[in-house]
Amino acid sequence: MKKIKRSGRLVDMTYFLIQRPHQLVSLSYFSERYQSAKSSISEDLTIVKEIFESQGIGSLLTTAGASGGVKYVPMVNEQEGRQLVKELCEKLEDKERLLPGGYLYMMDILGRPKHLNEIGRLFAAVFSQQKIDAVMTVAMKGIPLAYAIASHLDVPVSIVRRDHRVTEGSMVSINYVSGSAKRIQTMSLARRSLPEGSNVLIVDDFMKAGGTARGMMDLLAEFKANVVGIGVLVEAQDVEERLVDDYVSIARLAEVNQKENRVQAVPGNFLDKLKEVTQK
Amino acid sequence: MKKIKRSGRLVDMTYFLIQRPHQLVSLSYFSERYQSAKSSISEDLTIVKEIFESQGIGSLLTTAGASGGVKYVPMVNEQEGRQLVKELCEKLEDKERLLPGGYLYMMDILGRPKHLNEIGRLFAAVFSQQKIDAVMTVAMKGIPLAYAIASHLDVPVSIVRRDHRVTEGSMVSINYVSGSAKRIQTMSLARRSLPEGSNVLIVDDFMKAGGTARGMMDLLAEFKANVVGIGVLVEAQDVEERLVDDYVSIARLAEVNQKENRVQAVPGNFLDKLKEVTQK
Repeated sequence: MKKIKRSGRLVDMTYFLIQRPHQLVSLSYFSERYQSAKSSISEDLTIVKEIFESQGIGSLLTTAGASGGVKYVPMVNEQEGRQLVKELCEKLEDKERLLPGGYLYMMDILGRPKHLNEIGRLFAAVFSQQKIDAVMTVAMKGIPLAYAIASHLDVPVSIVRRDHRVTEGSMVSINYVSGSAKRIQTMSLARRSLPEGSNVLIVDDFMKAGGTARGMMDLLAEFKANVVGIGVLVEAQDVEERLVDDYVSIARLAEVNQKENRVQAVPGNFLDKLKEVTQK
Repeated sequence: MKKIKRSGRLVDMTYFLIQRPHQLVSLSYFSERYQSAKSSISEDLTIVKEIFESQGIGSLLTTAGASGGVKYVPMVNEQEGRQLVKELCEKLEDKERLLPGGYLYMMDILGRPKHLNEIGRLFAAVFSQQKIDAVMTVAMKGIPLAYAIASHLDVPVSIVRRDHRVTEGSMVSINYVSGSAKRIQTMSLARRSLPEGSNVLIVDDFMKAGGTARGMMDLLAEFKANVVGIGVLVEAQDVEERLVDDYVSIARLAEVNQKENRVQAVPGNFLDKLKEVTQK
C-alpha cells in the first residue's frame, strides 16, 4: 500500500480492525502497511480507540512491548443494549407470529442478517472476557444466531444435527430428553468439527426447559470440551424445572395466550450480565 | 453525538457505512450527527470513497439533489477475488476431506464466519447491480453462505426446508427430482417468509446436476418470485446434463478420485462474472 495521510489511514484502519475482532495486530504491521512511523500509528490508534469507545462500538486493547499490538473487542454500551432488547421484545409481541399450538413464528427475526448481527454483538460483548474456541448450535434455527455471534468473536461454528448425513464423516451421537415434550431424541456432531478440549459457547434461538441445551452439554462432554456459557435469544416463561441454570437470554416470553391472541415479552437477563462484564 | 473533528468523523463514518451496505444515507443525516457543515461532510466522504475504492473495499455512490446522499456498495477487486478463489481451491484439495462415496467434508470451510464473510462479499460484488429483495437457500449447509451474502446486500434470508416443521405456519411445498440421484424429494418454504413478487438470489454450498437449484426455482414460481441469479460455492465436474445453466460458482471440482486419494479443484466462473460487472 502506498504511503497515505492520517485521514486515509484512519478509514483503512477502522475497516481493517472491524474485519478482525479479537485478533492481535502488531504496530509493526500497520507501520509497514502505511509506511509510517510507529509513533504516528500510535496516535492514529488513539483516535480510533476514542471513537470506538465513545460510540460503544467496542474496545481497542493495546499491549506494549516487542510483541505489542492492538486488538479490537466488539462491545455494546448499556443504552444501545437496552434499545436492542426493547426492539426485540416489541417484535415478539406482534400477534401475527402466534401459530397453532402456541408456537411463535420467528423466521422474520432470524432471517434478517442486519438485526442478527446486532444481536450477535450483544452476546459477543457479554462473553468478550472468556476464552472461547468455538460456538456450537443445533440445526436449524440456531444457525444464523450462532454465526452472528461467532463472527464477532472470530471463532468457528459447530453445528449439531438431529439427522445423520453421509457428508460429515464419523459422528458422535447422544440421546437426550427434550425437556418440554419429554421425548427421547438423538443429536450428532461430526467428530472433526470440534477439536477435543475446546472452550465452547452454546447458542440457540429458543429455550424452554433447556433439554436441547442440556443435550448439547452432554454431547460436549464426549468431546472433552468445556462449556463456557449458554446464550439464547428468547426463553420461555412458566418452566417447571429448568435443566440448565446459567445462561444469558435477550428476551423472555412472559405470556403466550392463544385464546386471547396475546404475546407478552420482557427483557431477559442480558442487561444484568452486561453490567457484570462492564463493571469488572 | 457531540461535535467531533474530521479524524473522529472518518472513523465513525467508516464504521457506520460498513454496517449499512446498499442503504442510502443522506448528507443531512451525517451533517446532524456530527454537527458539521454539509461541505465538510462531502470532503469526509471523498476521503472515505478514495480509500474504499483504492483498497477494493467497495464503492461509495453519491446522489446529488435535495434527497441526495451516499450508499456503500461492497465490492472486491480482481486481485483479492483471485486470491480468495485460489485459497478456496487449495483448501478443497486437502485430501483429508474425502469421505466414503466420494463426498467431501465441507464444514471446516462453511464453519468459519470470517472466511465465509469474504466469500459473501464476492457474491455481493457480482450481484451488486441487480435489484435483490431476498436470498434463498435450502437447509442446512447453504445457510451460512446465504447469510454471509445477504448481510453484504442488506436483504433477508428465506430458508427452504426438506422437512416440515410446526413452527413456521402455512408452507408451500413442491416435489423435485434430485438431479444426480434421480430421487423424488420434497421441499417447503413458509408462506410468510417471502412476499409475492420478490426478486430472489438462490444460493447453495454445492451444485451437482442442479436439481436442488431447479427445485428452488420451481418453488419460487409458486411465490410469483423472480430469480435474479444463482450462486454456488462449489460445483461438481462431470455432470451429464445440468438442470440450470446460468449460475456463478467460486470453485469447480475437476477431479474427485477416492481410489487414488486425490481431489483437484479449479476456479469456477466467478472471476469472469466479476469482470463483466466491473467493466460495465
